[in-house]
Amino acid sequence: MSKQVLNFAAGPAALPREVLAKAQSELLDYAGSGISVMELSHRSKEFEGLLNRAIADVKTLLNVPDNYKILFLQGGGSTQFAQVALNLLGAKEGNSADYLVTGTWSLKAYEEAKRYGTINLAFPLPANKKYVTVPPQSEWKLNPAASYVYYCANETVDGVEFDFVPETNGVPLVCDMSSNILSRPVDVAKYGLIFAGAQKNVGPSGVTLVIIRSDLLDVKQHPATPIMLGYKLMAENNSLYNTPPTFAIYICGLVFEHLKALGGIAEMNARNDRKSQALYAAIDNSNGFFTSPVVPAYRSRMNVPFRIRGGDDALENKFLKEAEAQNMIQLKGHRSVGGIRASIYNAISEDNVTQLVAFMNKFLAANNA
Amino acid sequence: MSKQVLNFAAGPAALPREVLAKAQSELLDYAGSGISVMELSHRSKEFEGLLNRAIADVKTLLNVPDNYKILFLQGGGSTQFAQVALNLLGAKEGNSADYLVTGTWSLKAYEEAKRYGTINLAFPLPANKKYVTVPPQSEWKLNPAASYVYYCANETVDGVEFDFVPETNGVPLVCDMSSNILSRPVDVAKYGLIFAGAQKNVGPSGVTLVIIRSDLLDVKQHPATPIMLGYKLMAENNSLYNTPPTFAIYICGLVFEHLKALGGIAEMNARNDRKSQALYAAIDNSNGFFTSPVVPAYRSRMNVPFRIRGGDDALENKFLKEAEAQNMIQLKGHRSVGGIRASIYNAISEDNVTQLVAFMNKFLAANNA
Repeated sequence: MSKQVLNFAAGPAALPREVLAKAQSELLDYAGSGISVMELSHRSKEFEGLLNRAIADVKTLLNVPDNYKILFLQGGGSTQFAQVALNLLGAKEGNSADYLVTGTWSLKAYEEAKRYGTINLAFPLPANKKYVTVPPQSEWKLNPAASYVYYCANETVDGVEFDFVPETNGVPLVCDMSSNILSRPVDVAKYGLIFAGAQKNVGPSGVTLVIIRSDLLDVKQHPATPIMLGYKLMAENNSLYNTPPTFAIYICGLVFEHLKALGGIAEMNARNDRKSQALYAAIDNSNGFFTSPVVPAYRSRMNVPFRIRGGDDALENKFLKEAEAQNMIQLKGHRSVGGIRASIYNAISEDNVTQLVAFMNKFLAANNA
Repeated sequence: MSKQVLNFAAGPAALPREVLAKAQSELLDYAGSGISVMELSHRSKEFEGLLNRAIADVKTLLNVPDNYKILFLQGGGSTQFAQVALNLLGAKEGNSADYLVTGTWSLKAYEEAKRYGTINLAFPLPANKKYVTVPPQSEWKLNPAASYVYYCANETVDGVEFDFVPETNGVPLVCDMSSNILSRPVDVAKYGLIFAGAQKNVGPSGVTLVIIRSDLLDVKQHPATPIMLGYKLMAENNSLYNTPPTFAIYICGLVFEHLKALGGIAEMNARNDRKSQALYAAIDNSNGFFTSPVVPAYRSRMNVPFRIRGGDDALENKFLKEAEAQNMIQLKGHRSVGGIRASIYNAISEDNVTQLVAFMNKFLAANNA
C-alpha cells in the first residue's frame, strides 16, 4: 500500500484513482487483445472503437450539438494559440480578432495571434500586470467585423474564472477551457471553438481536446499553416490524419466513463461548488492571514491562489514545507505570481479539500502570532 | 495469462514486454512518490530527473557528440515536415533545400516543405510511383547553396532503407529516422538534424525525438513559425517550454534503459541483421511465391513488404486471415501499396521472426499449387 498523497498540482494534475487502477489492470492486455493499448495500431478496430467512444462521451457529457466536431490533437494549449489564429483569422476580410486578456494564458494567446493578423484588446492590460478580475462587459470594445472573439474561461496561474459567457453578437467565440472544462455545464452552442489541454481535468498531458463548429472548418487558412495544424484536415480524418497520441486518448476516454458513472457534469459542478466554497471560506475567515488576490465574483473554482500574511515568503515556505510533510504536494504558486496555489480539479475529492482546509486552519492557529 | 500475440504493426508498434511490465508495476506509485507518473508535474524534480536520464541515455546509446541537443516534441513526423522547413530553410539566402524522395514519407515531407521555400528534388520521382530503390549517388543533383539536404533513412510504407549516409559536402543533412532509429549504429556527427516519431522503435505515439546540432538553432526562422514549432525555444527550455507529453517520455526512457541493459545499439544491430536476413531468405527461397518489390541493396531491415504470387489478393487475404488465427497480427501492407508487410522493430524478437518464417513456409507448402 503506497502512501496517500494529495496532489494539488495545476497540471499535469491528479487523475481519478479508479481510472489509473483500470489502466494498470489492462496495461498488458487491452480488452482481450493480448497487447497493450500502447501497442494498438491507430488504424485497428480496437483503437477506432475507443476513439469513437471517447468522442461520443464528450458529446454526452457536454451535450454537444450535432454541428460540432470533436478532435484530439497534439501540442497543448500553446499550439492552439497559433492554430486558432492560423485557421480562423481569415473568416472576415480584416483578418482581425478581439482578445479578452484576463491572465497569463490569454496574454500568451494574444501575443501569438498578433503574429498572424490584427489583434485588438477588448480592454486594456492591467497597468500593474496583476490579473485579478474581468472588467464589466459594458466597458469592452468589441469589433463587429472581427473574425472571432477569444478568451480563457479560467486562468490557471492567476485564478480568474469567468462566471458568464461573453456576448459577441454573432461573432464566433473561441475559448481556452484547459483548466475548467468538464468542471461545470457549458452551453457549447454559444461557442465557435473550445479547446482544452488535457492535463488538468481531462487526462494526461500530450493531447488537446478541440470542439469546433463545423462551418468554421471552411474558413480560409493562413497560407503558412503547417498541414498538421489544419482543423479541417483533422476533422475530415477523425483525428487520424497521422498517428495520434493513442494512450493519452485512451486515458481521456477512461476519465469520461468515470465522470459519466459519477453522475456527469451536473454532479461535478455541485462538488466543485462545495469544494471551492469550503476553500475560499477558509481564506476569507482567516482575518486576513490568508488572502485571495482575486475579485470574489471571478474567483476560480479550479485554481485557488492565495497569499499568507500579505505575501510573507518565509511563512509561505514554512506552509509549503509542512504541507509536504503531510503529503500535500504541489501547493507552490506559479513562479510568476508566487505564494500558494491549490488546484482542485475534478479528481480532487471533497474530502481532500476538507483535509487541506483542516491543515490551513491548524497552520493559522499555530502561526497567527 | 493473456494469449501470446505477435504484433507486426508498423506503428504504434510492439513495445518490449519488460518495459510494459515495469510501467504497469509502478503505474500507481512512481518511484515511491505515491502518485502516478502521469500525475507528476513537469516542473517536479521527479519528472526533470526522468527527462534528463532519458536525454543522457539517448546520448549514450547513439554516442551523440556534445554539440547536439536532444528534444522531445509533439506532433509526430508529420509536424517535423513543416518544422524542419520553417526552422532551417533560412540557413542560406536562397531559402532552398534538396530532398531525396525514396518513398511515401519523404514525398510527404517534400510536399510540405515546398510551401515554405524552393525545394529541389535530387533525383526524379519514379514515373510509376513505386518506390523500390535509392538511385546511385553519382546521379543526384545536389545544390551546394542549399540550406540542407533531407532524406528518410527508412521508408516504413515502401520498405526502402538507406545502407549509407548521403555525402552532402558540408550542407547540413536532415534525416527522418522514425522507423529505424536505435536499430543500428548512427554517426550522428554527420547530421545536422535527426528526428523520429517514437511509436516504432522508441516508445508510444505522441512524442517525437529530435537530435539537432546546436549551431542550427540560430538559423533565422520563417516569420510565420508558430512559437511551439521553434527548435531553439524548445532547446533553451530543455523541452519544457510548455507541458510535454510526460508519460510518453517516461516510456521512452524505460525503452532506453532496456536497450542499454540488452547491450545497446550494437546488439540491436546484430539481432536486426539476423531477423531481416531470416525473413528475406524465406521470401527469396520461395521460388517466386513470395516476392519483395525492393532492390536487394535497399531492402529495409525494419519493414518488410512482400507480395504473394505477384499480388494475388485472394491469397494474400487468406494469408492474413490464417496469420491472425495464429495470433500474428497487423501483417497487412499499407493501403497505398497493398500486399503484406511485416514490421520487425527492436521489440520483435528473433524467435518471433522464426515463428513468422515457419508460418510462411507452411503457407507456401499448402498453397503453392
